[in-house]
Amino acid sequence: MERKIRVVQMGLGPIGNKSTIYLAERPQAFEIVGAVDLDPAKVGQDVGVLAGLAPLGVTVTADLHSVLSHGNIDVVLLTTASSLVKVESQLTAILPYGVNIVSSCEELSYPWLTQPEIAKRVDALAKQHNVSVLSTGVNPGFLMDFLPMALTGVCRHVNKITVERIQDATFRRIPFQKKIGAGLTLAEFDQKIAEGTLRHVGLTESIHLIAAKRGWKLNATEDNISPIVARHDVKTEYLDIKAGMALGVQQIGRGLVGDNEVIRMVFRAAIGEPETKDRIIIDGSPAIDSCIKGGVNGDVATCAILINSIPVTINARPGLRTMADIEPIACFA
Amino acid sequence: MERKIRVVQMGLGPIGNKSTIYLAERPQAFEIVGAVDLDPAKVGQDVGVLAGLAPLGVTVTADLHSVLSHGNIDVVLLTTASSLVKVESQLTAILPYGVNIVSSCEELSYPWLTQPEIAKRVDALAKQHNVSVLSTGVNPGFLMDFLPMALTGVCRHVNKITVERIQDATFRRIPFQKKIGAGLTLAEFDQKIAEGTLRHVGLTESIHLIAAKRGWKLNATEDNISPIVARHDVKTEYLDIKAGMALGVQQIGRGLVGDNEVIRMVFRAAIGEPETKDRIIIDGSPAIDSCIKGGVNGDVATCAILINSIPVTINARPGLRTMADIEPIACFA
Repeated sequence: MERKIRVVQMGLGPIGNKSTIYLAERPQAFEIVGAVDLDPAKVGQDVGVLAGLAPLGVTVTADLHSVLSHGNIDVVLLTTASSLVKVESQLTAILPYGVNIVSSCEELSYPWLTQPEIAKRVDALAKQHNVSVLSTGVNPGFLMDFLPMALTGVCRHVNKITVERIQDATFRRIPFQKKIGAGLTLAEFDQKIAEGTLRHVGLTESIHLIAAKRGWKLNATEDNISPIVARHDVKTEYLDIKAGMALGVQQIGRGLVGDNEVIRMVFRAAIGEPETKDRIIIDGSPAIDSCIKGGVNGDVATCAILINSIPVTINARPGLRTMADIEPIACFA
Repeated sequence: MERKIRVVQMGLGPIGNKSTIYLAERPQAFEIVGAVDLDPAKVGQDVGVLAGLAPLGVTVTADLHSVLSHGNIDVVLLTTASSLVKVESQLTAILPYGVNIVSSCEELSYPWLTQPEIAKRVDALAKQHNVSVLSTGVNPGFLMDFLPMALTGVCRHVNKITVERIQDATFRRIPFQKKIGAGLTLAEFDQKIAEGTLRHVGLTESIHLIAAKRGWKLNATEDNISPIVARHDVKTEYLDIKAGMALGVQQIGRGLVGDNEVIRMVFRAAIGEPETKDRIIIDGSPAIDSCIKGGVNGDVATCAILINSIPVTINARPGLRTMADIEPIACFA
């Protein structure tokens, strides 16, 4: 890299703050030149301090336009929301400044079939301003879409792809255990589902990414969420879970060609799962049975791939890119 | 795909013939429009018949120029040799016709550091004629370079990458057992090494691909081959191997930064290996331990990825591309 990549951070929640740390530890590659968040509690703070670092000399502002008007920005790292409807106005505010975008917005990871009108608008605007947009992360973005898709590259034919992301939450911290619904009654669990706070966003996008690349025209997708129910009392360091309460969550995604299930995604996080793993099974020629033992730590991995994808996104063909049509992303630090 | 991709097959050895079969079974995507081989025993034959299929109506010729002059060719599938020195004149004969090239030449998979002058010449010529060149395969090309490189994409930092391709040859066919030196005396084994017929070509290229993408400036690479020696007599269906004879071959590649081994490649194929597998271990954050149980069948996989990479190569940025800088390849049939 001849000169540092100039980054504006937008959205300083947990992912944004962790990204600050990861950017700051690669000073030969990146320079944080702006930080944007609407939260009045964050505005005026130093973006480094907000992330738990020493001050970086960049103050959080709510005024995106003043930051971008400054000019000479290579990329905005956009970590604001999971919903593409919410994020679209942010994308359309940024792109006219001729600035590339790397985003963690799950619904933007492969929106061509789920929200095609927005996808087309974002793509057209990015092309008009000769910049690229990529949304990625560990999931969606990598484990349940890019990686199985890439593994089919060595296949003569593929009948079915099964992806399992299984996490044993027994020894995880309490915020994670609560996030997956462990210790809830089934009524409480259902309420969280109804509120939308328990759902992993992006399973349908992952299914569509694989299917499109594979050439499968899906006539239906499913995304079903349910509790993993304790069959007997379970005690962890933090929780006392009675039989009949939730140990965690399971989400099953399916992609169908006719009546055939050609893609099956199992995303399960619960207390007492026998094995944490990321497994991909390709029923094809050759058959492939790939397993990452112990799984991939999601918090680290999502921020890492966001940072790692920045140079590739800047150099990509203009438009809305996805993990299905961007050059390989690797760790470079 | 709006119209079929018009392919010329060049080099009709085992990989070329298998590629014919794989191309022919995707008639909606590909049309074989020419076939080139210098072997007088193959010239004049139908390329389908040569591959064990029904006739495809394409006759093998030794005259590359007459085939390419015909015009309207999208890609040459070049499966002639492992040595880039041997292949360069073929590349430079094809590129002025404005035709893309997908190749199985191992030394072309990442020649930027091993044979930089040739790499630059091929790159310049491809750019001049606005086409792309990609060399790929299962190994080099995928298992020991692309896949570990891609897995680092979710890493915050990486200290070391270890890749193991281990194959138990006990139940493989006799040509494979012979190819890996099983049943040879150590003197015979050494002679095969000296002849160059036992060596896996491409380990150093794989190491350089990963290192370049990772940002490691290697000050040395190693590629050491040795026999796996029988400690007691072993009998297989075909072979009677006495203690002290070779069970197979091991090749170890190393990439060093200073005295630190940052990349380690273990390629081992022998009778009696306890487990066939393709394993990638990333010492980093997060740590990743990925294993393809039973490994990936190399014969099928190499021809499959050659075919699967054709559309991506045609659409790639002009020049010499590698698996480090081309958009993702997936099975589309």
